[in-house]
Amino acid sequence: MSVALLSPDKLLPVAGIRLAACSVGIYGTDRTDLALIEIAEGSECSAVFTNNAFCAAPVSIAREHLDLANPRYCLINAGNANAGTGTRGYNDAADCCHILAKRSAVSTNSILPFSTGVIGEYLPVDKITSGIPKLYSILDADKWLDAANAMMTTDTIAKGISESIDINGESITITGIAKGSGMICPDMATMLAFIATDAKIDKALLDEILTEAVHHSFNRITVDGDTSTNDACVLIATGKSDATLFTDYDDQNTRQLREAIRKVSIYLAQSIIRDGEGATKFVTLEVTEGRNEEECMNVAYAVAHSPLVKTALFASDPNWGRILAVVGRSGPNELEIAKISIYINGLCIVSKGEKATDYTEPAGQQAMSSDDIHIRISMARGDAKYTVWTSDLSYDYVKINAEYRT
Amino acid sequence: MSVALLSPDKLLPVAGIRLAACSVGIYGTDRTDLALIEIAEGSECSAVFTNNAFCAAPVSIAREHLDLANPRYCLINAGNANAGTGTRGYNDAADCCHILAKRSAVSTNSILPFSTGVIGEYLPVDKITSGIPKLYSILDADKWLDAANAMMTTDTIAKGISESIDINGESITITGIAKGSGMICPDMATMLAFIATDAKIDKALLDEILTEAVHHSFNRITVDGDTSTNDACVLIATGKSDATLFTDYDDQNTRQLREAIRKVSIYLAQSIIRDGEGATKFVTLEVTEGRNEEECMNVAYAVAHSPLVKTALFASDPNWGRILAVVGRSGPNELEIAKISIYINGLCIVSKGEKATDYTEPAGQQAMSSDDIHIRISMARGDAKYTVWTSDLSYDYVKINAEYRT
Repeated sequence: MSVALLSPDKLLPVAGIRLAACSVGIYGTDRTDLALIEIAEGSECSAVFTNNAFCAAPVSIAREHLDLANPRYCLINAGNANAGTGTRGYNDAADCCHILAKRSAVSTNSILPFSTGVIGEYLPVDKITSGIPKLYSILDADKWLDAANAMMTTDTIAKGISESIDINGESITITGIAKGSGMICPDMATMLAFIATDAKIDKALLDEILTEAVHHSFNRITVDGDTSTNDACVLIATGKSDATLFTDYDDQNTRQLREAIRKVSIYLAQSIIRDGEGATKFVTLEVTEGRNEEECMNVAYAVAHSPLVKTALFASDPNWGRILAVVGRSGPNELEIAKISIYINGLCIVSKGEKATDYTEPAGQQAMSSDDIHIRISMARGDAKYTVWTSDLSYDYVKINAEYRT
Repeated sequence: MSVALLSPDKLLPVAGIRLAACSVGIYGTDRTDLALIEIAEGSECSAVFTNNAFCAAPVSIAREHLDLANPRYCLINAGNANAGTGTRGYNDAADCCHILAKRSAVSTNSILPFSTGVIGEYLPVDKITSGIPKLYSILDADKWLDAANAMMTTDTIAKGISESIDINGESITITGIAKGSGMICPDMATMLAFIATDAKIDKALLDEILTEAVHHSFNRITVDGDTSTNDACVLIATGKSDATLFTDYDDQNTRQLREAIRKVSIYLAQSIIRDGEGATKFVTLEVTEGRNEEECMNVAYAVAHSPLVKTALFASDPNWGRILAVVGRSGPNELEIAKISIYINGLCIVSKGEKATDYTEPAGQQAMSSDDIHIRISMARGDAKYTVWTSDLSYDYVKINAEYRT
């Protein structure tokens, strides 16, 4: 089940990137579970990782390798997170990197490993390494969707998008894929995202572009408030397009590029929410007219994490009292309840801290019946705002998470 | 459904307290929904209320009245929270107080109103005031259980307990009742608790005793992280026993009394969790050997609020990886994952940040099969500790909260 999310129609190749996917039986079935992304020499690469202090072995290694060399390969497995596996887990991930490095004749430091799946089980190294020669032999520029499929866990649908932009007559392509549907919260959850462009981008600028894109996309989504141990978002610039080198953040051309990368990131982030575990609603939570961005963010996340609000959303119940109660406990300084207004899909349901006088229950239910719900909470005391995206809390969320391991 | 919670067997009368309950049809059925507690003249009374900035009208009035006079009556209705009702809601609650004050010939300021139920509907003042003469006419020292029943909302069972203690040969009685099963979080949730003793206690000391009791009981429970708009806990000392006045916090006799009141408070708080919405497990979360109480508390609440941990508990799944992942994101300074150990009902499942070497899945499942789950998380770097109580996240939690208004 997902909320108005379609499988990507056509993912465009990005010059300098080849991909492959295969099944090595980590799930005990023939579904694909291992993917490889090859990055042409001379590319630049930025990445951000989970802030969870309990991060997985592949995250530790990917961070180290990224400091030592320009990445040439991303090796991704689903079905096993290689987290909570201690020294053995670290060595297991390193072994996979060594074998791939040997096969592809690059330095081990230029391999980034990624794992997603169950925490606390040892990585099936033999299975993964047995798949490496196969993956290497089938690398192809047109296999973005195969890679997106291979890294799914509780995802019900592969997530990806391409953008083509024209800058000064030169065509630039951006393609991104992502996985994730539970344990989703800011600072990267059980999500992995790989975005590549054929633009040529200075490394320092690439870092800035990724930070900005993540701030406006992956760091604004939450399914259940749980941040995972394995999250990562990788942005690659192969430089294979004919466009000239991007170096200046504020340059008009860079702005256009930044906007396109941000758009891809937001689409992927929203796709993760649309495919949120058990999701029946896609919810945009916008807090406006706050004193500062921080108070807007705190209110937005408090509402997005409230089980009472999320179950009301599941029931299509315009239970504005629950929303107001969460705003009340979310703790902004000197909160002025008597100024708060709340809108659902444009319908004013709370005005000045009370039920709007012209609000009717049928109108509220009508507004809530949509699969896409936009909740706007106005603080009416400033000009700051913040938006997060979330899903509802359904029977299926409980079912999926109660049964995941069994 | 509740977890090993029985209806109170026998609630002892407390000299100086009379109670009554009746049905005024707030629920549209003949279930009781209005209760009255009469407090003898000369009693002392302390109360703590919700910290939610969006507090209900009766909370505002009760706070004001408590500052102006010694309470003589608590008027409690279920089925309607009188929250989010603005000036009209305030006037409605005041009207109820006026009518009761007139009937009982006391000052309006000596009436404390309490409401619990749906947020955002106007109080059915006519129904409530029509019940006041009836309630007044049937006041009786032996009606604690009737009052406990009348204030239930989504509760499945009335909650109450009595303690008798003997101090220097004088007998002292403490009886308490409580309601609440969802929207439960520290700082008082949709809960109401009324505790009375016939001990004679100095007002300043009574305040201290209540603060301490709440800190160790009602402020340590969470069902869903949502703090409500209506929560209150009231402690009454009628002074009708023969025991001498308690004035000194550290006195041996006062210690005995404090311990008994704390015991009653903890029992009531735990009863709320045992009757938590959809609860199938009663979970004690104990974080030990932390650097300070605050870091222990933060870890304990992060785990207690995690939907992924709560659904695993529902499934009786010893998913230690999810617990460890929450500890990792809960943000204590310089968290040392490699020192963390986790025990479930005494079974060590994580040792030094990894699955314990002698841990087996059958042993974990055996430990998790109990209805009462004790999770201990050792930080192994200090001597501070903190305990909270919570429940699991089940289909029924979603069902109850998706259907509450409809």
